[in-house]
Amino acid sequence: MNRSFKTVAIIGKYADPNIGDTLKTLHQQLRARNCAVIIDADTAASINGLDIPSASREQIARQCDLAIVVGGDGTLLAAARSLSDTGIPVLGVNLGRLGFLVDVWPDEIATRLDQVLSGQYTEEDRLLLQARVERNGSTVMESAALNDVVIHKWQVARMIEFQTYVDGMFVHTHRSDGMIVSTPTGSTAYALSGGGPIVHPGLDAVVLVPVCPHTLTNRPIVVSSASRIEIVVGQIGQNASQITCDGQVTERVETGDRVIICAKPRKLRLLHPVGYEYFGILRSKLHWAENP
Amino acid sequence: MNRSFKTVAIIGKYADPNIGDTLKTLHQQLRARNCAVIIDADTAASINGLDIPSASREQIARQCDLAIVVGGDGTLLAAARSLSDTGIPVLGVNLGRLGFLVDVWPDEIATRLDQVLSGQYTEEDRLLLQARVERNGSTVMESAALNDVVIHKWQVARMIEFQTYVDGMFVHTHRSDGMIVSTPTGSTAYALSGGGPIVHPGLDAVVLVPVCPHTLTNRPIVVSSASRIEIVVGQIGQNASQITCDGQVTERVETGDRVIICAKPRKLRLLHPVGYEYFGILRSKLHWAENP
Amino acid sequence: MNRSFKTVAIIGKYADPNIGDTLKTLHQQLRARNCAVIIDADTAASINGLDIPSASREQIARQCDLAIVVGGDGTLLAAARSLSDTGIPVLGVNLGRLGFLVDVWPDEIATRLDQVLSGQYTEEDRLLLQARVERNGSTVMESAALNDVVIHKWQVARMIEFQTYVDGMFVHTHRSDGMIVSTPTGSTAYALSGGGPIVHPGLDAVVLVPVCPHTLTNRPIVVSSASRIEIVVGQIGQNASQITCDGQVTERVETGDRVIICAKPRKLRLLHPVGYEYFGILRSKLHWAENP
Amino acid sequence: MNRSFKTVAIIGKYADPNIGDTLKTLHQQLRARNCAVIIDADTAASINGLDIPSASREQIARQCDLAIVVGGDGTLLAAARSLSDTGIPVLGVNLGRLGFLVDVWPDEIATRLDQVLSGQYTEEDRLLLQARVERNGSTVMESAALNDVVIHKWQVARMIEFQTYVDGMFVHTHRSDGMIVSTPTGSTAYALSGGGPIVHPGLDAVVLVPVCPHTLTNRPIVVSSASRIEIVVGQIGQNASQITCDGQVTERVETGDRVIICAKPRKLRLLHPVGYEYFGILRSKLHWAENP
Repeated sequence: MNRSFKTVAIIGKYADPNIGDTLKTLHQQLRARNCAVIIDADTAASINGLDIPSASREQIARQCDLAIVVGGDGTLLAAARSLSDTGIPVLGVNLGRLGFLVDVWPDEIATRLDQVLSGQYTEEDRLLLQARVERNGSTVMESAALNDVVIHKWQVARMIEFQTYVDGMFVHTHRSDGMIVSTPTGSTAYALSGGGPIVHPGLDAVVLVPVCPHTLTNRPIVVSSASRIEIVVGQIGQNASQITCDGQVTERVETGDRVIICAKPRKLRLLHPVGYEYFGILRSKLHWAENP
Repeated sequence: MNRSFKTVAIIGKYADPNIGDTLKTLHQQLRARNCAVIIDADTAASINGLDIPSASREQIARQCDLAIVVGGDGTLLAAARSLSDTGIPVLGVNLGRLGFLVDVWPDEIATRLDQVLSGQYTEEDRLLLQARVERNGSTVMESAALNDVVIHKWQVARMIEFQTYVDGMFVHTHRSDGMIVSTPTGSTAYALSGGGPIVHPGLDAVVLVPVCPHTLTNRPIVVSSASRIEIVVGQIGQNASQITCDGQVTERVETGDRVIICAKPRKLRLLHPVGYEYFGILRSKLHWAENP
Repeated sequence: MNRSFKTVAIIGKYADPNIGDTLKTLHQQLRARNCAVIIDADTAASINGLDIPSASREQIARQCDLAIVVGGDGTLLAAARSLSDTGIPVLGVNLGRLGFLVDVWPDEIATRLDQVLSGQYTEEDRLLLQARVERNGSTVMESAALNDVVIHKWQVARMIEFQTYVDGMFVHTHRSDGMIVSTPTGSTAYALSGGGPIVHPGLDAVVLVPVCPHTLTNRPIVVSSASRIEIVVGQIGQNASQITCDGQVTERVETGDRVIICAKPRKLRLLHPVGYEYFGILRSKLHWAENP
Repeated sequence: MNRSFKTVAIIGKYADPNIGDTLKTLHQQLRARNCAVIIDADTAASINGLDIPSASREQIARQCDLAIVVGGDGTLLAAARSLSDTGIPVLGVNLGRLGFLVDVWPDEIATRLDQVLSGQYTEEDRLLLQARVERNGSTVMESAALNDVVIHKWQVARMIEFQTYVDGMFVHTHRSDGMIVSTPTGSTAYALSGGGPIVHPGLDAVVLVPVCPHTLTNRPIVVSSASRIEIVVGQIGQNASQITCDGQVTERVETGDRVIICAKPRKLRLLHPVGYEYFGILRSKLHWAENP
């Protein structure tokens, strides 16, 4: 057994009472392999009859050296944000449907645990973004994002307007339904629906994807993840814009607000089962043709 | 002088006090050509010192045989909807910026009036849509649209879901930011930003453009304008969707609501100055290359 | 038995010796249902041991009142062009892989024949195009097309240039890899790969899809099928362009050539098995979500 | 005067006799600033009455410490490839039309020369690719590219097929009109027409853009420029594919050929006038809105 994974956190799909059996099995399998197990308090609250010590995310961050997330990609996104400053590696178990991020199948958990605990896994470092909203010089909102930071219209039928800067250089004034600032991880999520490219997670890049831009030449732009991206909310769509991180954390933004987006210094340590292929998951999810 | 245009309505840009001089000049020019002139009551309310008889849209519909709209495309859209059942032809005067619909330049009004009143103009019939929202068997909202009917997410960061039917035939279940149902006129507006094709106004067609669809093969679909389009709001995004006509008329829609969209029996009679070319306006607005 | 289908032609996949058994079975089934059967001479030439009277396409056109095409969509495209002036209905049998056009499965032929011969089928009229290349006033090439007419670069790495006219109206000067002029039938083929919309076959429309246009706003344009489309080959890419109909008929075009594309007066009568749904085939071929 | 630029090469637009006066003026201005000047032999061959010592590209590479290219982006592409292993910086002078790469205007040459020779300029390092075609274990073609390496159909109307690998990992089997492998520099050229994103030249990335892919989910992919990209030509389109570098160097490829594409170890040193902004050129070329 790999001595680096002694205390393992279990984080389950939000408010889903149906995953109780999967979590109990996972708990027993971890105990049988001599791991201490802590369950996320929010997860525990939704499930009856769990006999596992629970703890807050903060406690998990202090005590655990591996987090196993059971659910869909959304569950893993939320867990990744909450653990983003800790360096704790994360392993994703799906619930019967392959995700881009949760790629251990429930019926292979036992085998995969044996492998992971003995050091047989593929570790991939995934870029996280940090978004900060500045209003009149003060920070009014801050959040991490593993997929994307989106500034988008809200409670309004018409487009909004903003100015974009990269490393202090003016890019353009832009009218659209919104702007997606995506990590490589997020490039196969909402950004792809918006017309953005697929960005390999091994590339330290961020992609800016305008949503339904009024000017057709306002195409997706890929920049270095070392860039400081700044988006200033314009007059049009005043008080009708919103910032959203990973589709999960939202906040109203106002005309004149500056949204500053940078890479987080620490990346997410995402663990995959042995044999993981990034393009293999894409082939499966996107119905690409296999090698004949 | 063309005897068919004896009483002319003037409809100006909404709540814009700066167009007073343009309207006064237009009024004088019409009077000098022996036309009776009525100004739209809403327009008159925003402008000081106008000495023109004003009337409601309903009165205009009964009394006038030509409406001259002064403003941008948005002004003409609103006027067209309000006159959509009347058959009154509409002529659009822009305020110094060419529109897709308002193509008489302010400095050529006198010449153009002489031409139009003597029958020298190009008349184009433009398809209008009628949207109706049915909830539990009752109609809860109804509106005309010259550009587009959009069902879109509202106060929610994530995608919404709906089922689409054309003439009772199931098309697909669809997750996206929304669905644009556009006339040929609207095909160069929001639908174009959403990835839809340009549809010539001489074609009796309607285009369905999904906005950022989750499934990348959910591409725009062009169907006959004789089709009955029905969009049923799904579970996802429950109570978080909105219907918007021409970006101007909006109403909340709920899970289970049926949005029924059909062509209006009567088209808009849109007048253009002599020499009008549909593709010429596109070349200008879309920066297409000219014939060398 | 429907008296209108007394003499049936069989047309098979081009130069495929493996379809012999399928054709023999089909032949027996037709004979058992009292149909006279003629096999296409080109098809017969590739297959040993067929004991069916064969005839040229011209003879088939004179003698048959139904053509059954066995193969892929490409086989049906070629058959449709060769029969395009005859009004003979066409039924497509696939070889184990659903096509957009060949939608009778080989293992259901017997049932489908019973139905079709007794008048139980869905008939759909599909628009055909006629393309003609004019050089110095003479016609140098002419062909029908069921999917599309494409003017594209050939033996050249760089883009070509042409001018487009619709009903004599200048559209634009256009630099790209080529221009696809597609029927509704072709809108789910090459035109879709080029970024065009899906056009319902019930709509009398033609779509012009530029391939990799240099000017990003040169978007697909949908016009009435009553339009006369004219594409003039420009200076750039001189002697390096080609016209191709349905990906099957090709001819070199030169600077100054005029390609004139119109709807054929007669449509293809395409027969489908009972229960046919146009959108059902799209859902299957494009991996769209089903109604849950 | 900056002592690093003592001997300057002039390279002009290919086979253009009309640039003689511009080159003579440039020559005089360089001489007046105490620079030794050598003109590219190919350039000199097209122009009468030039009294400047000429030399081959190889000699230029040995003797010069700055190359000034006069022409369009295509001229600079060709010059960059020929100097790609030398480290000689390149400055581009346009002929009255702004290029993405040639951004010194002809009427400001004198001022810009003063600045550049005194060290006032912006240097940008631009990634170059090296493409190599392997057939039965032998290299049959090799070329550098500053914009893109394209494998595309040639003398064939239908799509071609190939398999793509990144760092030995299988990506997909892919049917399309071709595949563009583009540098950040090339991302605003052909790759943009093909639907690729704009990639900032400061990012060490390469983008793979399929041209009209048969499978709609075969979207552009951005990978690290440290990747080894390998494209294997498939059965379909046998003997009908071509490789093209920068739209200028072409060679036939055959079924089974392996095209290997890597970043060149040395980047192009591209000089810009003081005040250069990458996004400023994009705003101008792509008609983006300015900051109001």
